[in-house]
Amino acid sequence: MNNSSSLTKEIIKIKGDISYPAADFLATEEPLEIRISFGNARQRAQKNVSVTMRTPGNDFELATGFLFTEGIIKNVAEIQSIKHCNDENVIIVELKEDVEVELNKLERNFYTTSSCGVCGKSSIEAVKTICRLDDSIDELTISSLVIYQLPDILRSSQDVFDFTGGLHACGLFNESGELLLSREDVGRHNALDKLIGAALNKSMIPLHNHLLLLSGRASFELIQKAWMAGIKFIAAIGAPSSLAVQMAEECDITLIGFLRNKSFNIYSNAHRIINIYENSDKG
Amino acid sequence: MNNSSSLTKEIIKIKGDISYPAADFLATEEPLEIRISFGNARQRAQKNVSVTMRTPGNDFELATGFLFTEGIIKNVAEIQSIKHCNDENVIIVELKEDVEVELNKLERNFYTTSSCGVCGKSSIEAVKTICRLDDSIDELTISSLVIYQLPDILRSSQDVFDFTGGLHACGLFNESGELLLSREDVGRHNALDKLIGAALNKSMIPLHNHLLLLSGRASFELIQKAWMAGIKFIAAIGAPSSLAVQMAEECDITLIGFLRNKSFNIYSNAHRIINIYENSDKG
Repeated sequence: MNNSSSLTKEIIKIKGDISYPAADFLATEEPLEIRISFGNARQRAQKNVSVTMRTPGNDFELATGFLFTEGIIKNVAEIQSIKHCNDENVIIVELKEDVEVELNKLERNFYTTSSCGVCGKSSIEAVKTICRLDDSIDELTISSLVIYQLPDILRSSQDVFDFTGGLHACGLFNESGELLLSREDVGRHNALDKLIGAALNKSMIPLHNHLLLLSGRASFELIQKAWMAGIKFIAAIGAPSSLAVQMAEECDITLIGFLRNKSFNIYSNAHRIINIYENSDKG
Repeated sequence: MNNSSSLTKEIIKIKGDISYPAADFLATEEPLEIRISFGNARQRAQKNVSVTMRTPGNDFELATGFLFTEGIIKNVAEIQSIKHCNDENVIIVELKEDVEVELNKLERNFYTTSSCGVCGKSSIEAVKTICRLDDSIDELTISSLVIYQLPDILRSSQDVFDFTGGLHACGLFNESGELLLSREDVGRHNALDKLIGAALNKSMIPLHNHLLLLSGRASFELIQKAWMAGIKFIAAIGAPSSLAVQMAEECDITLIGFLRNKSFNIYSNAHRIINIYENSDKG
């Protein structure tokens, strides 16, 4: 568990044909569970209204704003108190006795998305218990020269928008840098679910010998979904979160980020990348 | 309801001191509800497992991939059939009779986030019934010259990362372009909930006279949250989705996007922007 808003991580930086160790800052990602306590003096009830992956800091504001923007409270005066519940990642908002909570609105107005428990560590453990794939095949290696080309290949395959537009994209490549599948969506997890759904339909799962390229940032949830499909190499154009890196480390996934302009950062398991020290005269 | 992956929208483009009408493409955003049907021949049950805001297209893959990456199915052979349920935005996945669904895992492994019904139109209507703010004050106007400066101001206020890093940010400005509040988070909806929570604590709500700047894209959910706080002017560095634009139009919110390099697109309610036709010799 890490409850500061960023942490430092030792990484390997790759630029053109050179590589060197460097320090990088990661935005912290940890789950936060928001519970409300409500009812009159004789009968108080507690209900979990949200678990969200957030950056620690301003948690009380987050809980207050969430309850307000979701229509559960009308104003801040309806809150009696806010406190952490032993665990830094669980918040209890006590509502005043006269506040009426529409329970059925709670049920209806919230929808489900993937989740993970209430700390980063338990999130990773929870995922690990689900995965059922044979994890023994591990022969994938990819050249940094191949990796440099992937963003342009994915970009040129995008139907609706290029990367500057409104859609997230993800692409599945083989070790030669051939694009096998790509999908896009306003939601990054949806784009990945679509891609993995397509791979399932084509009997390509597990994807041990494939690289997954993400057009944006790499969050815990994306690493988790990729891992379910057996993917061992993930490249992101954007930054990874702290929990994404931790999950990649623990699950033996190679994770690189900031893949742009013939340069990238290696966050975990560098052994699947070859030609890092390629001399320019070989190119 | 719109079920193609993009749509065209007439907008006003602002560049430096000129403006002109243009056509822009919006990524379509619509809710998709995924239901599973399971059990043996004598007793079948149906359960809603997810409502996600997605771009229409490859919906069956999305449902398949979602059920797999969340550990609900082990492989594609467990699926009997997938079909739309009258509504294009509702999918039913029929699981084979011998597939055991762990109902309590379903409950535990999914968490709640804000929601909206199952079509864009109903999503907007659902939000409108919740908002309780006095909507009569509407005097905000902001100069395009002021708007140009906002991204740099927000960027310089960010604690952990600048925009190229791992965090989403949002900022609240007055009509003179003064930054009053800013918050950041790995989740864009969390950053906004934090900001609105802080505004609630400072008794600043409703925020009729403020501009909200978003560091990334503008989705339906962000417009909805801003509207709950009474915000009438939203600027995004990135692209808005189709449903974000529709909501802004219907709720009298000024929405601008692609705010970069002294240029932006106006998607709705241009009347709150002044000095659009400012001559360069006035600057």
